[in-house]
Amino acid sequence: GMDGALPATSPAGLSAYVAVSQLLGLTLLVTTGAWLGRYRGGVAWHSSLQFNIHPLCMVLGMVFLQGDALLVYRVFRHEAKRSTKALHALLHGLALVIALVGIVAVFESHRTKGIPNMYSLHGWCGMAAFVLYLLQWLLGCGFFLFPGASFSLRSRYKPHHVFFGIALFVLSIATCLLGITEMLLFNIRDSYSHFVPEGILANTLGVLLVAFGLVMGYVLTRDDWKRPPLAEELALSMDFKTLTEGESPGGGS
Amino acid sequence: GMDGALPATSPAGLSAYVAVSQLLGLTLLVTTGAWLGRYRGGVAWHSSLQFNIHPLCMVLGMVFLQGDALLVYRVFRHEAKRSTKALHALLHGLALVIALVGIVAVFESHRTKGIPNMYSLHGWCGMAAFVLYLLQWLLGCGFFLFPGASFSLRSRYKPHHVFFGIALFVLSIATCLLGITEMLLFNIRDSYSHFVPEGILANTLGVLLVAFGLVMGYVLTRDDWKRPPLAEELALSMDFKTLTEGESPGGGS
Repeated sequence: GMDGALPATSPAGLSAYVAVSQLLGLTLLVTTGAWLGRYRGGVAWHSSLQFNIHPLCMVLGMVFLQGDALLVYRVFRHEAKRSTKALHALLHGLALVIALVGIVAVFESHRTKGIPNMYSLHGWCGMAAFVLYLLQWLLGCGFFLFPGASFSLRSRYKPHHVFFGIALFVLSIATCLLGITEMLLFNIRDSYSHFVPEGILANTLGVLLVAFGLVMGYVLTRDDWKRPPLAEELALSMDFKTLTEGESPGGGS
Repeated sequence: GMDGALPATSPAGLSAYVAVSQLLGLTLLVTTGAWLGRYRGGVAWHSSLQFNIHPLCMVLGMVFLQGDALLVYRVFRHEAKRSTKALHALLHGLALVIALVGIVAVFESHRTKGIPNMYSLHGWCGMAAFVLYLLQWLLGCGFFLFPGASFSLRSRYKPHHVFFGIALFVLSIATCLLGITEMLLFNIRDSYSHFVPEGILANTLGVLLVAFGLVMGYVLTRDDWKRPPLAEELALSMDFKTLTEGESPGGGS
């Protein structure tokens, strides 16, 4: 941080884990693109390929961007809390917009092909994940970004925000695994059991999704990797003005 | 605890959450049984119904019993650490045996019907979950149950044991969701999208599995619900003999 005047070092190991997570995240996107491009004819909005927009947007929005939004407090640990919060909200907002495009793509594609919506476990889990994710984002903005909420309200809501944030990220990944399984059983039902390349590639995408979740979960839950409060945040938290104006101390919201 | 001489009270809310988790766990088993009994012909080892042993054993072993094994330190918070550890290991051991029966059932059933093994994402995730779960159990016994490991080794391994324990529980639930989706697409592929009762029931089982994981995750990760060390454990931890013999203080292993 420019204004923190603290030595801007990260705990040993954290940077390596973050690097691995980003490598995994990019590999996820490339693998999804390779599957859709090589075996499913590619992607295009106004065509029979509209469905393929769905998996691409969901992996990008609900997995990669949602995951990176969770990571910002670990990566930008010496920046001002306010900027990091704004980035956290912005990345989640972007993830939500991209996910919405992906959801519209599958509904439109189903309408064109006369396939019903929301009948499968994938559909149920996915809709639950998206609606709760939107709700969590709105609550997060309301409690932490706008100045209305009191210090004590923020402190009480924060652990729930963190728990449900990680839970929704995990549910999003599980929903992707269900989507992969559905796509394979609809498209290559008879050859899947003969270990055809498309099946192996899509299974590998599933394993990569699990690995991404595992690395993210490790980074996010490790106690000594949590963001430490900056010196000025500790000072501020002792200031009466802070409390009356609803600002929270470092690590407190 | 009989020997702890502490007031044997639990934090407010914990008992209610534990009760809900057990109600959800039993509902899981009943719903799985209802699905298999009502729509899949029931279960029997030496018959064409051998496959149905698989989902029943996996939900019982890899979800219900694995989950309850994770819960023992929250429920038996005033018992001697040693007894609670033994129960933790025993429940995981039982879960492993039941899961093994479930895995043998699907391999045998596949052999009889000439279906290849381990080609699907469900198979990959399930085998990874089972093998890592067995490994985690062996490591846990080696580090915490037998007296060989030093105090410092136990303290360093413990957070990893806890993280991977919860991660494997979550992976087990995700694998069940994949199994539900596979079974539905193999058995009722054409009617699934018409919201037939079997589809709704199996989807509901999936939602119950997610809810079970959510409640368990909340109970296990809430800081102020963690097991406090007993008075005699705190005293013991200051005893030099403890350190040289590799005994750990309360909450330390």
